[in-house]
Amino acid sequence: MERYASEADYLAALAQRGVLPKGFRVASTRLSFVPNERPTQEPYAMNLALLMADRPTDSFAGVFTRNAFPGAPVILARKRMNEERVQGVLVNNKISNVCTATGIEDAESLLETLSPLVGAGSRRLFSVSTGIIGWSLPVREMQAAMPHLVSGLDAGTALEFARAIMTTDSFPKIRCAEVGTGRIVAIAKGAGMIEPNLATMLVFIMSDLDVSRDDARRALGEAAGKSFNRISVDSDQSTSDMVLFLSTRAAGAVAYPELARALSRVCSDLAEDIVRNGEGTSHVIKVHVSGMKDESTAAEAGKAVINSPLVKTAIYGNDPNVGRIVSSLGDFAGNRGVAVSREKLRISLGPHEVFADGVFHLDRDKEVALSAYLQEAAMNPRITGYPQHGECVEIHADFGLGSGAATVIGSDLSHEYIQENADYRT
Amino acid sequence: MERYASEADYLAALAQRGVLPKGFRVASTRLSFVPNERPTQEPYAMNLALLMADRPTDSFAGVFTRNAFPGAPVILARKRMNEERVQGVLVNNKISNVCTATGIEDAESLLETLSPLVGAGSRRLFSVSTGIIGWSLPVREMQAAMPHLVSGLDAGTALEFARAIMTTDSFPKIRCAEVGTGRIVAIAKGAGMIEPNLATMLVFIMSDLDVSRDDARRALGEAAGKSFNRISVDSDQSTSDMVLFLSTRAAGAVAYPELARALSRVCSDLAEDIVRNGEGTSHVIKVHVSGMKDESTAAEAGKAVINSPLVKTAIYGNDPNVGRIVSSLGDFAGNRGVAVSREKLRISLGPHEVFADGVFHLDRDKEVALSAYLQEAAMNPRITGYPQHGECVEIHADFGLGSGAATVIGSDLSHEYIQENADYRT
Repeated sequence: MERYASEADYLAALAQRGVLPKGFRVASTRLSFVPNERPTQEPYAMNLALLMADRPTDSFAGVFTRNAFPGAPVILARKRMNEERVQGVLVNNKISNVCTATGIEDAESLLETLSPLVGAGSRRLFSVSTGIIGWSLPVREMQAAMPHLVSGLDAGTALEFARAIMTTDSFPKIRCAEVGTGRIVAIAKGAGMIEPNLATMLVFIMSDLDVSRDDARRALGEAAGKSFNRISVDSDQSTSDMVLFLSTRAAGAVAYPELARALSRVCSDLAEDIVRNGEGTSHVIKVHVSGMKDESTAAEAGKAVINSPLVKTAIYGNDPNVGRIVSSLGDFAGNRGVAVSREKLRISLGPHEVFADGVFHLDRDKEVALSAYLQEAAMNPRITGYPQHGECVEIHADFGLGSGAATVIGSDLSHEYIQENADYRT
Repeated sequence: MERYASEADYLAALAQRGVLPKGFRVASTRLSFVPNERPTQEPYAMNLALLMADRPTDSFAGVFTRNAFPGAPVILARKRMNEERVQGVLVNNKISNVCTATGIEDAESLLETLSPLVGAGSRRLFSVSTGIIGWSLPVREMQAAMPHLVSGLDAGTALEFARAIMTTDSFPKIRCAEVGTGRIVAIAKGAGMIEPNLATMLVFIMSDLDVSRDDARRALGEAAGKSFNRISVDSDQSTSDMVLFLSTRAAGAVAYPELARALSRVCSDLAEDIVRNGEGTSHVIKVHVSGMKDESTAAEAGKAVINSPLVKTAIYGNDPNVGRIVSSLGDFAGNRGVAVSREKLRISLGPHEVFADGVFHLDRDKEVALSAYLQEAAMNPRITGYPQHGECVEIHADFGLGSGAATVIGSDLSHEYIQENADYRT
């Protein structure tokens, strides 16, 4: 993976990655408001961002949170999936528009104001929100900011858009792929270690590839299943998680396997960026589970490791407490009724085998080597603004039982995480 | 719940609670060893504790971890359940004896050394360990300490035994009940917020009530199911969790309902002590879920809330971010396929209703009141050695769907937790 010497270096790379596919324009702006639910009159800042296709397109797809109490943006976007064509997406940060009395109404009001300004029917537009759950959108202030927002629409790069949708993300995230004469540009916010409101993850993917709606939906579902659904930072699935794909179809056609491959790579890279971008993340952890009866059980076993606070805190402290890995796998298997064999289990941390033939393989030299391995993969959580490097802590667990395999990605649990999440709304 | 002015005040109360049932003696001692797996020659301290009935008894019961990779003590104790009679329990802290090459052998060697010293067959003894997973017991040093250990057996109080089995517990934990002419004394270690090795929980319950083995096993299973299985601190189930019950039957008989009630109360109180005792715990959180289709789904929904790092960190910060509660419940219901209705859901935090009729009920005054409510339930995690008070943060979630209800208990997620768990083995 690439290394960046500085924030400027990273942003220059991102501006390149963010070059918009044919037929797209983006814009962003900032506004100030006083929330109704806060005891003080202290103003809050909100970013508005806008993504528009030049013409309505029938090539669009979406993947949404399975949370049973989804926010108004998710409810609305699910409905939009039945429209013949869509054309643009309005995004705000700071307040997530979830389960308020006027949530749907608020989102629709915003789109009705936006509609004449961009010359697109309001039912062709999405309103997407991320931020505090339970509070109401400052609709009036958002409407007032829209003329200025729309006047800024520009066909250059998605970099500013990617910055505008951030909440406490530590750096903007863009990935791209060139496919034949067209391209795919994908932008994400959240859900790093530090992302406070239930790890809300928003992903916007723009393309100009000439793909049918059916192909777009199939490829997006597959790519999301093996990328965004395989990361776990807070172990919570937000009320607002959403992945949207829009293509203007303004470039050449593409064979399905090529589309699927490119989309899959973009999504996987972006998913890893999401984990790495948390301010509180000092280690990115990849758990590779193999030899399990099937893929989904392998993924669940991996998540049991990656969501264990005890594994996460040990890795944060560069302490190779591999007993916690074995215990989290045993907890998962025992409590989920998955038959496993201690004798067949093999576990490695980095290049070092630590468990085989039913017992731990640990000695003084290996403890020193394991600790050094963890230290090398560490990032300084106080350096923000760009990813320092692409190192991961790699845990391999082979159950020796079948051909089910999966990789999940997560992060450690640090002081910085507690700090951000205990104090988020203040 | 009781309040204690100081550690001395608490220990005096505990010495009373710990008065041994008829026919029991306990002892403890300390030894020093150098682990084979550490790069340095720095010595570690280990406590040995011993609990003996004067005569072998057939009235005994056990409840064990469901972890698929249990430690040697759990494997051995499960076998002991088939013995006709048992007589005593040897306990060590510091090293948990899990998945090492000689684990079972080590435990058996210890018991063979102990056997002639206490005049009990080694198959009538349990060897129980808690501590670091993956390291080997210092068998030779432990054997050498046994004569001194046995010479200290005393029929007074369990207080010193309760202290000896602690690892990073912040205070010893004993609960008791008088039942007719007999009593029940229960002692726990772990698994507070801070308990580092996968929240290992050990509970030893002594009684002199004249209860049959069948009644003891039935009552213990029921009591554990609604107490120890309803607390969640690290969300991990240890390789070594164990609850053992022994009665000398030296006091009067007891009707089953009375036994069940007393055992249930002792276990529930002890479970709450376990949560409260973590050095890193600043709030004890009780989640009461009702109106769910059945009891086990209600308990799972409660655990989804209590295990959410985002809920836990918000409460640590006295931030009434109730959106995170709704989101964790929605995540659980949506991803587990539990049909729920947003309109029927009602959520309160303490005495304040925050969600009803499908929407949040929040305003400035309520935010102030909620924040004050959280502050009042806070403990200072830097004051250790005794529980400062018995306050809890109470979350009520009623789904309005059925009669399934359950209460789960957990704790918040603090800086002190990270500190302890990142640095545990160093």
